[in-house]
Amino acid sequence: MIYLSKFPFKTQKTAPKVSDNSSTSILLQAWFIRQTMAWVYTYTTLWLRVLEKIKNIVREEMDNYSCFETLMPALSPRELWDTTGRWDSIDVMFHVPAANNKEYWLNSTHEEIVTPLLQEFIKSYKDLPVCVYQIQNKFRNEKRAKSWLLRWREFVMKDAYSFHYSDEEFINYYEWMKQVYLNVFSRLWLAKDTFIALADWWTFTDKYSHEFQVRLPIWEDVIFYDPVSKIAYNKEVAPSKVAKANITENVILERQDIEAHWVIWVEALAKTLWVPADKSTKTMMFEVDGRFVVASVRWDYEINTLKLQKMLWAKSIRLASEEMVKEKTWSEIGYAWIYNLPEWIELYIDDSVEWLTNFETGTNKTWFHSINVNFGRDLPFPDRFYDFKEAKVGDKNPETGAVYEVFKASEVGNIFPLETKFSSAFWLTYLDQNNKSKTPLMWCYGIGVSRLMWVVAEYFLDEAWIAWPENLSPFTHYVIIMWDENIDKINKISNILNTNSNDIIIDDRNVWFGQKISDAELIWVPNIVIISPKTLEKWWYEIKKRWQKESELVEFSF
Amino acid sequence: MIYLSKFPFKTQKTAPKVSDNSSTSILLQAWFIRQTMAWVYTYTTLWLRVLEKIKNIVREEMDNYSCFETLMPALSPRELWDTTGRWDSIDVMFHVPAANNKEYWLNSTHEEIVTPLLQEFIKSYKDLPVCVYQIQNKFRNEKRAKSWLLRWREFVMKDAYSFHYSDEEFINYYEWMKQVYLNVFSRLWLAKDTFIALADWWTFTDKYSHEFQVRLPIWEDVIFYDPVSKIAYNKEVAPSKVAKANITENVILERQDIEAHWVIWVEALAKTLWVPADKSTKTMMFEVDGRFVVASVRWDYEINTLKLQKMLWAKSIRLASEEMVKEKTWSEIGYAWIYNLPEWIELYIDDSVEWLTNFETGTNKTWFHSINVNFGRDLPFPDRFYDFKEAKVGDKNPETGAVYEVFKASEVGNIFPLETKFSSAFWLTYLDQNNKSKTPLMWCYGIGVSRLMWVVAEYFLDEAWIAWPENLSPFTHYVIIMWDENIDKINKISNILNTNSNDIIIDDRNVWFGQKISDAELIWVPNIVIISPKTLEKWWYEIKKRWQKESELVEFSF
Repeated sequence: MIYLSKFPFKTQKTAPKVSDNSSTSILLQAWFIRQTMAWVYTYTTLWLRVLEKIKNIVREEMDNYSCFETLMPALSPRELWDTTGRWDSIDVMFHVPAANNKEYWLNSTHEEIVTPLLQEFIKSYKDLPVCVYQIQNKFRNEKRAKSWLLRWREFVMKDAYSFHYSDEEFINYYEWMKQVYLNVFSRLWLAKDTFIALADWWTFTDKYSHEFQVRLPIWEDVIFYDPVSKIAYNKEVAPSKVAKANITENVILERQDIEAHWVIWVEALAKTLWVPADKSTKTMMFEVDGRFVVASVRWDYEINTLKLQKMLWAKSIRLASEEMVKEKTWSEIGYAWIYNLPEWIELYIDDSVEWLTNFETGTNKTWFHSINVNFGRDLPFPDRFYDFKEAKVGDKNPETGAVYEVFKASEVGNIFPLETKFSSAFWLTYLDQNNKSKTPLMWCYGIGVSRLMWVVAEYFLDEAWIAWPENLSPFTHYVIIMWDENIDKINKISNILNTNSNDIIIDDRNVWFGQKISDAELIWVPNIVIISPKTLEKWWYEIKKRWQKESELVEFSF
Repeated sequence: MIYLSKFPFKTQKTAPKVSDNSSTSILLQAWFIRQTMAWVYTYTTLWLRVLEKIKNIVREEMDNYSCFETLMPALSPRELWDTTGRWDSIDVMFHVPAANNKEYWLNSTHEEIVTPLLQEFIKSYKDLPVCVYQIQNKFRNEKRAKSWLLRWREFVMKDAYSFHYSDEEFINYYEWMKQVYLNVFSRLWLAKDTFIALADWWTFTDKYSHEFQVRLPIWEDVIFYDPVSKIAYNKEVAPSKVAKANITENVILERQDIEAHWVIWVEALAKTLWVPADKSTKTMMFEVDGRFVVASVRWDYEINTLKLQKMLWAKSIRLASEEMVKEKTWSEIGYAWIYNLPEWIELYIDDSVEWLTNFETGTNKTWFHSINVNFGRDLPFPDRFYDFKEAKVGDKNPETGAVYEVFKASEVGNIFPLETKFSSAFWLTYLDQNNKSKTPLMWCYGIGVSRLMWVVAEYFLDEAWIAWPENLSPFTHYVIIMWDENIDKINKISNILNTNSNDIIIDDRNVWFGQKISDAELIWVPNIVIISPKTLEKWWYEIKKRWQKESELVEFSF
């Protein structure tokens, strides 16, 4: 039971303007949070209670599925990260210099800690599958905190790690874990807008990671959802096919090579050469694992280098240098294009270019562009076309032909197939049924607990308040006391209301009734209880449920 | 309800030998903790449950006293610490280099965060007193982790901060807070060995900080407890008087100046010059705020520089350099002593020297020591004697004359009078009843939650296990299932046992009964419930309470 008169609490009359989200304004106005530095907030009791309620939902669902809570350290020694080579390869991590010339990692993830830890336990196939999780503060050395709450420098994560003896055993396990996640989002009232999106996780696998994405108009991730197959993709990996067939002209026109000084960008070309949007191509040159690779899409698409890299199973991909372009294509950057390219060059053409006729490309000759280029005549028809374009609104899923629904969303959970990446690095093995030494498969499962809290706030944002679901509001009952004395009289109020006393806030402040009511509404406590001398005389109290228009009078029952 | 068959859990047959405490061995053996790096442990579910139970006790007591839980960030910007000058002055802190040339402090304490935070709330005397607390991971860049658990690099703290308008108002408040603390230690069954010890906190105050110390033979702090006044002191500040009067000889002997090359240390002097322990003096030269200060104690005492510094209200104190000693005393270090000292030198003599006759001192002449030195004849009787010796076993409290009880203890809580140190640095002010701007007084209150957990373990350490108090054991019921199938039958076991299902562990492992019983005893769960086909047939179960010799048969009641 919290007595508001003793609580450092001062709602603001109006919502302050912040560069963050609109829910942040309300949270500031209603004294859920206070700002400590840019993008870093202190949680007051109100916000902390929402966090604890969400934590407990996550905890209950994980425990029910026999994944066991544990607590690993926040700092870990450099040696563990050198073992997997991640010390230098992940750049958003805090490296903490420490006494005695030691270096610690302020953990953002715990694969390097959990793997050696479980080594003590996993000896036999009988010990598998096994799962541990923790709910903990994690840290990321963000360059900018980007949009307001997406990636903060410190945040609360639930991270779980499971170990398995076979893919089959895992698949079974995974289906259950997916259900655990869906239970969590359903208990947070987010189920109808939660999508499981396929996403990338590591170049050297054809497996996707799974992201749990909550549809929200303001967020960072873009989801391509196929309403036929019911499969959602993160934009970064969405396969795509142009929706509208390209206009194929029956008349094949004569090719023209046009001299146009300093006209390199597609927009300029379109203007100068009168080439329409869907009759031009965009070509980029890459250095892929040291090889020179040329890739081309229709001009109104972008090349998705991640899709291209995965298509080529490449370790590294970067734009080719000016020198390399000149050496390989005998042309200047800006004019190196698919037409006139030496035939031994490794060339990939996206299927967005497939049906183009009389189209434009660079000529591989400084200052020159060609229009009315055609496959078969001016350059050979490729054996096949590929898909490495960045998917766009209007695109289809090549597998089902269905047009994607495209929307913004926030990633609140994910599941990664770690396979044996970490178990091999730490030489974690077990004995199988034939007494042979095997390396267990690992999976990891994250839920961004603090992010989820902000997503809930934004999701339930109404005009003037956040309309919390009843199980997430910081309190169930807001009791307004209408006189100063004899609070003792109602000290057994939690018995009277038949509620956990922790969930009751008592507004005994020396302020006007109107202020009390408007604060109760701003915090959005589902039950507002009013006890006045008048009602108390008859041993009644007044209760107004947040979703009802009228309040009721109820007799006290002891 | 935890099913042990799915739990990564393997007790060890014997307690492993560790350089830590004996309770650590048991905790490792019983799978409460696993080691991640030197002095850093991962908590398994068992240990985490003890931690949560302790946290909840702390939380309930703080909440009851209307101190409000909040959560401040773990990282804070350098600017806040520059404001109070603590960025450079505290050397056990982690300074974290971050993106964009920023520097963060990985917080070990939160005065610099809470003060500006409360600035938004504290406007008028009506807003005071006010208190906020948090339970959070804290960090310290320890050079060595010293004895095993005293100061770890990361640990859980409850830190509270209160703001007040007057000393009187605070004193009232403080008495309550002391009670909150004593309630916590009493609910942890530590009350009878918890002492409130006075300790230092800041040079520029005559106020003590209060430490809550639990008497434990293996710990770091040394407590001087006066059984008459019931006041306890941390060794660092204990006032002291030698217990036995020094032997005063009636015959004043002739002084002798003896040449003794390279005999500087007191032990060597005693041997060479045949001077007994209590007839020699120890003199040290200091540079105190730039001044040259000489201080002397009886040879078997040490000088407590903290007591000396506080006595002199000095900002800094350090040993004087060789050059300074030579310049001021005209003597070499090692021979500069109280006898023959130029009379303008600032000299302080501890009261342990007061009654000495015919004693030994250096002669302030290289190679020379003097014996049979006497006040009044060889050097002037000082106006007064001081107390800056390090207290020893056998010493008395000068105020009451009572001989101290001296014992080792672990500091589990503390209360610091911050006065206006932080509120002035951040220009935090409020309007008093006369509308005048005032600076509020601040106090802070710590409880080392994770340390407390280890203290409890050590305190209740028995021969082969930790005999947890019933409310702290990770579970209340350990249910041993004696057959493989039909676990569903007893799925309502929490109803049957009339207990929160969270507090039940079910041992359904495929291991011998003896193993199950011995694990239940090792973890020390207060109620061991045995369900076998034989008892189940009659709808009975067997329960053995940890403190009873015999088990009972109880009928199931639904």
